[in-house]
Amino acid sequence: MYELLAELFPICRSITGDGVRETLQIIKRHIPLEVYEVPTGTPVFDWTIPKEWNIRDAFILDEAGNKIVDFKENNLHVVGYSTPLDRWVTLEELQEHLHSIEEQPDAIPYVTSYYQERWGFCMAHNERVKLGDGKYHVVIDSEIKDGHLTYGELIIPGQTEREVFLSTYIDHPSMANNELSGPVVTTFLARWIMAHPGLRYTYRIVFVPETIGSLTYLSRNLDSLKKNVIAGFNISCVGDERAYSYVRSPYGDTYADRIIRKILQSSHPEFIEYSFLERGSDERQYCSPGIRLPLVAVTRSKYGTYPEYHTSLDDLTLVSAEGLRGSYALLQDCIELIERNRVYRITSCGEPQLGRRGLYPTLSKRDSARSSRAMKNFIAYADGTNDLIAISDLINVEVGDIYGIVEKLLEADLLEVVSADPGEPASRHQR
Amino acid sequence: MYELLAELFPICRSITGDGVRETLQIIKRHIPLEVYEVPTGTPVFDWTIPKEWNIRDAFILDEAGNKIVDFKENNLHVVGYSTPLDRWVTLEELQEHLHSIEEQPDAIPYVTSYYQERWGFCMAHNERVKLGDGKYHVVIDSEIKDGHLTYGELIIPGQTEREVFLSTYIDHPSMANNELSGPVVTTFLARWIMAHPGLRYTYRIVFVPETIGSLTYLSRNLDSLKKNVIAGFNISCVGDERAYSYVRSPYGDTYADRIIRKILQSSHPEFIEYSFLERGSDERQYCSPGIRLPLVAVTRSKYGTYPEYHTSLDDLTLVSAEGLRGSYALLQDCIELIERNRVYRITSCGEPQLGRRGLYPTLSKRDSARSSRAMKNFIAYADGTNDLIAISDLINVEVGDIYGIVEKLLEADLLEVVSADPGEPASRHQR
Amino acid sequence: MYELLAELFPICRSITGDGVRETLQIIKRHIPLEVYEVPTGTPVFDWTIPKEWNIRDAFILDEAGNKIVDFKENNLHVVGYSTPLDRWVTLEELQEHLHSIEEQPDAIPYVTSYYQERWGFCMAHNERVKLGDGKYHVVIDSEIKDGHLTYGELIIPGQTEREVFLSTYIDHPSMANNELSGPVVTTFLARWIMAHPGLRYTYRIVFVPETIGSLTYLSRNLDSLKKNVIAGFNISCVGDERAYSYVRSPYGDTYADRIIRKILQSSHPEFIEYSFLERGSDERQYCSPGIRLPLVAVTRSKYGTYPEYHTSLDDLTLVSAEGLRGSYALLQDCIELIERNRVYRITSCGEPQLGRRGLYPTLSKRDSARSSRAMKNFIAYADGTNDLIAISDLINVEVGDIYGIVEKLLEADLLEVVSADPGEPASRHQR
Repeated sequence: MYELLAELFPICRSITGDGVRETLQIIKRHIPLEVYEVPTGTPVFDWTIPKEWNIRDAFILDEAGNKIVDFKENNLHVVGYSTPLDRWVTLEELQEHLHSIEEQPDAIPYVTSYYQERWGFCMAHNERVKLGDGKYHVVIDSEIKDGHLTYGELIIPGQTEREVFLSTYIDHPSMANNELSGPVVTTFLARWIMAHPGLRYTYRIVFVPETIGSLTYLSRNLDSLKKNVIAGFNISCVGDERAYSYVRSPYGDTYADRIIRKILQSSHPEFIEYSFLERGSDERQYCSPGIRLPLVAVTRSKYGTYPEYHTSLDDLTLVSAEGLRGSYALLQDCIELIERNRVYRITSCGEPQLGRRGLYPTLSKRDSARSSRAMKNFIAYADGTNDLIAISDLINVEVGDIYGIVEKLLEADLLEVVSADPGEPASRHQR
Repeated sequence: MYELLAELFPICRSITGDGVRETLQIIKRHIPLEVYEVPTGTPVFDWTIPKEWNIRDAFILDEAGNKIVDFKENNLHVVGYSTPLDRWVTLEELQEHLHSIEEQPDAIPYVTSYYQERWGFCMAHNERVKLGDGKYHVVIDSEIKDGHLTYGELIIPGQTEREVFLSTYIDHPSMANNELSGPVVTTFLARWIMAHPGLRYTYRIVFVPETIGSLTYLSRNLDSLKKNVIAGFNISCVGDERAYSYVRSPYGDTYADRIIRKILQSSHPEFIEYSFLERGSDERQYCSPGIRLPLVAVTRSKYGTYPEYHTSLDDLTLVSAEGLRGSYALLQDCIELIERNRVYRITSCGEPQLGRRGLYPTLSKRDSARSSRAMKNFIAYADGTNDLIAISDLINVEVGDIYGIVEKLLEADLLEVVSADPGEPASRHQR
Repeated sequence: MYELLAELFPICRSITGDGVRETLQIIKRHIPLEVYEVPTGTPVFDWTIPKEWNIRDAFILDEAGNKIVDFKENNLHVVGYSTPLDRWVTLEELQEHLHSIEEQPDAIPYVTSYYQERWGFCMAHNERVKLGDGKYHVVIDSEIKDGHLTYGELIIPGQTEREVFLSTYIDHPSMANNELSGPVVTTFLARWIMAHPGLRYTYRIVFVPETIGSLTYLSRNLDSLKKNVIAGFNISCVGDERAYSYVRSPYGDTYADRIIRKILQSSHPEFIEYSFLERGSDERQYCSPGIRLPLVAVTRSKYGTYPEYHTSLDDLTLVSAEGLRGSYALLQDCIELIERNRVYRITSCGEPQLGRRGLYPTLSKRDSARSSRAMKNFIAYADGTNDLIAISDLINVEVGDIYGIVEKLLEADLLEVVSADPGEPASRHQR
């Protein structure tokens, strides 16, 4: 995963343009993505797909001809969607188009202006203060014209039409945790899912530009998403090792919330749970009123909470193979739980006689009961009203340990399935 | 308000009689009250309107002819509804008819005996202990006879028949916080409401003798109260500066509870919330089983909780213009919230594009989102299931700040009204 | 009660056999039990009634002919359901059939093997370590053959078919708290119930062997139990003085939970509430999925929580007349509450006029309200939605004090019964 991330890192992505296309082509080497192009001007809900932006080069020369800012060195140097330019400007005029962060003087900030035409450069504050009076030659070799918004989609069919939805975004230039960790972990997760044919659920996996891309995807797939998706995960900022966290759905009560919370509680009990008020990525669209997919955002150090966020400091040193692997394992656990989760009912009236099935000691001493306590507690609540998550909560046993109990009881023909699909799609929710 | 209070202070009120009539006539100079007279003997639910009581004078003379207790000095000196009397009694007999408070030796207590004929005097304990042996001439120039119970009502029609109900009482003799602060604040609140024509709700405002008066009013208006009142406030003890408080409805779950709690939380977060077990005024009737109006009692230092309560110490020095003004402002805030409250739904699918409407910065830097965070959070929960109070709770923004957000979004044509009347009258409640 | 317990103590009981029969015969001297015999081989749900086991004698002799273990001294010395035997064995072979507790070296443990044929002896660890090498003559004069499972039942009819269910078990050899305290308290409780004809509810009281006995009883009476039982109590370990406790039903929400909790809160506020995860007796069957009777287990020092549990230390010194009496009184209180509990509604609209009925002082002073505060608070919540338990919770008055209020208000004709049966049988529950 780290290698793929490093390969994608140098590409200059934006919400449209060739950077997105190149990124999707590289990912396509790993998974059979379908790539879609949606024309500029297409209305998507309250928005319109903007013109396509591409950039070849950009720099600032001082009077002596020294390149003091160079896009080719770091693509964060140019404000996203900057208009083409080739001019001499005074320092004073230049300053109005410069962005830097006084408190992080070595960091180049990440700035964009998608929906209003302007130009600008970003640079380290330490460099900016060195700028002397005089004239500067400012060049931006970019192009803004009618074109397309590009996104990728992979659908892995399962036994039912009900879907698990994974979304990640691909519109940021060279930053590692936010955002390349997301597409990279998602790509490998998709490979792992494809390697397990016969799964119960259909997996719908999308790589979209943030906001306008998720809105575009929603506008073209809303009915089926609301009808089929039982749990969704927006995957972002999953590459560092400092934390595990997630952002709740608006009311914290969806199937996705229950899944991620149950897994984090057992695997990373120190995890951080953010309110929906702390949202920031495409969960803003997926969970908005009128859409309300059952979806959470899965993160390690969440956007907006770590100092390197949206600067050049979010680079390849911030993420690690270990950090990516942790997120990958976390999401695998979520998927395993979704696949295994059922509402069961014990078939016997009264407790079943476990002893004659070898599931309970035949010699009854004072401590006999303890050995099979978890199984007996599972049975006590396998009453056709609780799924595995609810039972895990009720009996204080991790779901991972419940899987084995279920298998033994199924072998003994003591369980029946009351519901194979405990999750409900948005079309069945009230709000 | 303080001036009106001082003007009303000397009048000797009781649950019936000329004191009530005089009080209502003075209030009528400020607001167009309709005054009603209900005859003695009229059954009101489990009760009957008692005979009317009026008193001209009362005093106790010692053998030397000194007036040692004088009704004209303080009308609390006579037990309410004392029967007429002109007799010489021994000290021993007199003692059986005297009331004082040992722990508050300078206070004249307030005592009544509405439904059993007796006579009595109240006096400071310090004076009582000075009484020497001998005979006393006791005179009570009162009259108990068939007459009427008197109350006042003002109905200010609004756009809908749904009503906000304000009730206060006018049966106590010369005491300031309990009770004159109530009628005075209510009078000025009524004036303010009348000064704002075009309000959504109808305002029903009553000035009644406590208990028998509210029962009488209920017995004559029960159906329309249960059908129309969405929020009621019993206004009492609202003149001092020591506290803000309210008494919850029986289950604390009515619209009136939500309104007062939301306003107090933001304007006076140190407020005291009393359980319905701490009730004591007309909320006892308005919230009783079978009636259950959605109503709370609004108080500053609540009856029963402050040392001067029901004594001559509850005088003009206990209340202040500032104290009255605070209650007036509090109730104005409640009314503003009731008038503004709606259940809204955002009209866009997905987040609306605030940027092109000037509601969001077009240049996206790391901190851009913060500036419009409250508006975006409002939108996230404007899903047609939450009124402004619920959204305020969900997004931790005071309702006062939400009003402005709503106005901007209405201007931008981004909100639709799902319910213009979030409050429910008692006839739609289950209990 | 203590005398009956001492009389029953020496009998060697098991889940079948003459010990059970003898026990039931002795109890029958106190209450008119109906005794049932169910043949070996009868299927009961997932189980089958086992062969009947009886034992006359058992001992171990050393080479010198000394009786080192003697069943006649303590019937715990033999593993329950041990097969017949008359053999010389080496110490090594003997050790495989011996049971002792290293941490409690003076205690003989209680061990059984109902469903797998084996033999064994239990002894104090201190004695076991003294065994020298050599041969031992092992004799078990027992018999395992087709026979019956025996249980007792007493039904005391009430005014309605709705039932209160009391269950206790009678299959343990000589141990006092677990289990003889249970049958003894239950016997005297049955006598007390019979001494009060005209009770509202029917009382169904059973004395069964644990697990297989309760399963047998359920399999023969399931429909009527689910249709009629509104509250059940499994009575066990109720003889010592160290604690009061109960085991909640699976979700802690049944009528039985509400009853026992309310009584314990007022009579023994230091009581222990165990989760259903801490269950261990016949509540395992009565509350299992598919049955789910509204039942709790009532205990003092609960099985599994006290050091003497399931050993010879649980003897006549562990329990006391006072301990038994406490449990007896507790269950009487529960029954009184069940019999008295109703959902009432006050018949007056508005507060009733208590004063003219002598229920409220006619002279109103500052503290008048306090004296009848509990009655007025009761009235405030007697709105036809709360039973006495709910009102007790709402107004912070013990149910014992509420009984008197109810009687006064019924005398005054101020209450009507909205529901005479607040408890619901399992057939009306959802899970």
